Amino acid sequence: MLIVKNIDRVREEIREFFPPAFLAVERVASSGALGRVLSKAVPAEEDIPHFCRSTVDGWAVRAKDVFGASETFPAILKVAGEVLMGEKPSLTVAAGEAVYVPTGAWVPEGADAVVMIEHCERLLDEVLVYKAAPPGNQIVFRGDDRKEGETVLPAGSILGPKELGALAACGRNHVGVFAKPVCGIISTGDEIVPAGEPISSDSAEMRDVNHPMAAACLRQWGMEPRFFGICRDDEELIRESLLKALEVCDMVLLSGGSSAGRLDNTVKVIAGVPEAAFLTHGLAVKPGKPTILARIGQKPVIGLPGHPVSAFFIMQTVIRPICYALYGIEAPPLPYLTAAAGEKIPSNNGRDDFVAGALTNGVFTPLPLKSGLITLLCAANGYIMIDRRCEGVDKGAPVQVYLF
Amino acid sequence: MLIVKNIDRVREEIREFFPPAFLAVERVASSGALGRVLSKAVPAEEDIPHFCRSTVDGWAVRAKDVFGASETFPAILKVAGEVLMGEKPSLTVAAGEAVYVPTGAWVPEGADAVVMIEHCERLLDEVLVYKAAPPGNQIVFRGDDRKEGETVLPAGSILGPKELGALAACGRNHVGVFAKPVCGIISTGDEIVPAGEPISSDSAEMRDVNHPMAAACLRQWGMEPRFFGICRDDEELIRESLLKALEVCDMVLLSGGSSAGRLDNTVKVIAGVPEAAFLTHGLAVKPGKPTILARIGQKPVIGLPGHPVSAFFIMQTVIRPICYALYGIEAPPLPYLTAAAGEKIPSNNGRDDFVAGALTNGVFTPLPLKSGLITLLCAANGYIMIDRRCEGVDKGAPVQVYLF
Repeated sequence: MLIVKNIDRVREEIREFFPPAFLAVERVASSGALGRVLSKAVPAEEDIPHFCRSTVDGWAVRAKDVFGASETFPAILKVAGEVLMGEKPSLTVAAGEAVYVPTGAWVPEGADAVVMIEHCERLLDEVLVYKAAPPGNQIVFRGDDRKEGETVLPAGSILGPKELGALAACGRNHVGVFAKPVCGIISTGDEIVPAGEPISSDSAEMRDVNHPMAAACLRQWGMEPRFFGICRDDEELIRESLLKALEVCDMVLLSGGSSAGRLDNTVKVIAGVPEAAFLTHGLAVKPGKPTILARIGQKPVIGLPGHPVSAFFIMQTVIRPICYALYGIEAPPLPYLTAAAGEKIPSNNGRDDFVAGALTNGVFTPLPLKSGLITLLCAANGYIMIDRRCEGVDKGAPVQVYLF
Repeated sequence: MLIVKNIDRVREEIREFFPPAFLAVERVASSGALGRVLSKAVPAEEDIPHFCRSTVDGWAVRAKDVFGASETFPAILKVAGEVLMGEKPSLTVAAGEAVYVPTGAWVPEGADAVVMIEHCERLLDEVLVYKAAPPGNQIVFRGDDRKEGETVLPAGSILGPKELGALAACGRNHVGVFAKPVCGIISTGDEIVPAGEPISSDSAEMRDVNHPMAAACLRQWGMEPRFFGICRDDEELIRESLLKALEVCDMVLLSGGSSAGRLDNTVKVIAGVPEAAFLTHGLAVKPGKPTILARIGQKPVIGLPGHPVSAFFIMQTVIRPICYALYGIEAPPLPYLTAAAGEKIPSNNGRDDFVAGALTNGVFTPLPLKSGLITLLCAANGYIMIDRRCEGVDKGAPVQVYLF
């Protein structure tokens, strides 16, 4: 019944299987746009820079006047003035002349090079230039950075600090971004109770960890999580909850279903909705095997493993790219730190293994999954993935640790 | 006049030089606590789990009853019932008996091991167990994860998805966090105009890029940026602005001052305030040399280079750990991707070099700084740091690319 796929195959198929969502466009202040996704390309509305700028404190000269200048044979030029910051100079540099320019100032007409002050010496009305400078030396010419009309940021750019800096440089303090995709979360399980509730020591109830954990992940990826409550393991109740969520969400996560019986429930519910299509039912990965990736109409519907650590791995490696696919873009690559395996880490052939562990001073020590979720969620600060074609990792071997 | 230090020495001295700020404590809903910093350790208020849980779907047995069981000689046990999810079982497992337990269910009294259903076969009232199981097999015992009173999250934990999951598992839907440190930003420079303003083509004005860029960085690190406007290059004006910011902020960034004259202005202003102390005035790094790290009383006061790309490097590598020092914690390590240098990258001995570039398909291609800020801020998606003891990086050599 399970159509188990490898995680890398699934990741290759995500963009094709999950089309971009129909997202509204909002105009927001740039100051509040951190993490948002640009709906339309931003062009330069003027040449950037709009004047020839000096990149150093120095003397603006004609390059041919300092040709061959050296420590022993400096060029001797006449001081013709100084350019002030922020101002367009009215003076020009004639043959044999030099004008002082601070960093970022407008290089006056006539000059085609700037020589750093370190290589010059001023003597009253003259300046000795001890170094030759080719044409263009230490100058950023008008439009060097971007010409009017050229694209500064393409549509789909995620607005981080550097993009917000670039928008500011273009004079944009408002920007069009996509509305955040809304992701519904439904927790399922007869034993699941809300996070804030006391648990009777006479029951085998478990608090809902996946909802707050998944919601935090979604927020980090620019999504808006919306919770549809905890649903008992009942096909009809889960169906009702799913249909309600699909009405208002761009994507739905159903958490729970690690055991065979429950997993079938979720799959049955999804399969029973018209327009349902499955990318996979099961991943050849440990932990995280009971993962369902489907779509109802255009909307992703995900069955997430009930075990929080498994769910976390699946969120990071599979759900994250699906979230960005709603914007029609690739997820930024997950960075990692390289470390040495603190011990031999065995692995099973035939499926990829996620191993959570503690990264300390460049050494990655795996933590056993069995010991429970809190220990792993708190003592582990990263995980590695062991390829299904490997039999494990030797002690001391380099591993790529993705930070939790 | 410059007391130039190496960047790694400065980073070592940050925690000692910048004491934790006096931050108020706020009680917030866990659902809104993403990125906040825990003010007090969170202990487990009960044993976690509070019962013995099965980690698989299987049969709860007495380990000695299945001792030596194998494919050829299965143990034959009497089916004594089934445990339902979420419920405390009233039945017990006597010698020669087995009870069905789904994943996550309470393992009944008497049993000390669980055998996965894959290794068992049910025949009406009996179950054949084809595999031996040591005591404790597939069981998480009460308190295995955390005992009542043990620390789950220490004070100073940054609340990411896994920490929020752990809080939920502990039954906490509210949590005490530090108030976000407030960081004042003052942009300086006669040529600087606000980001949203048109620029006259008859002036050499530049839009303020550092304020929005730095503010976005600060937000990413859990700080609250507060803008104190653009200040002309006037010692008295800068002093007024700085004193005003110091009254209400935990830290102040003064942006601008790449040129020697202006740099001196910022330094003079800081040095003129009573209780000022300098960690460094200048960093042996390129770009980013004109960086001032000081403190007035207990509060960090930073002189940030005016060039946005330099400012960005300094924010990531030096200001980031200072921000976390306000919480009294270490900054999380900056992850990176390993790539091959796309070309030979020369470097200067004696100072560390930051090189921005484009990372594409595992190849890092440096982009020249001269070409301007937009090009670098947009076309570059990462940077490398070349150690001052290196003469550069050969084409094809491995480099660690920190993503922008």
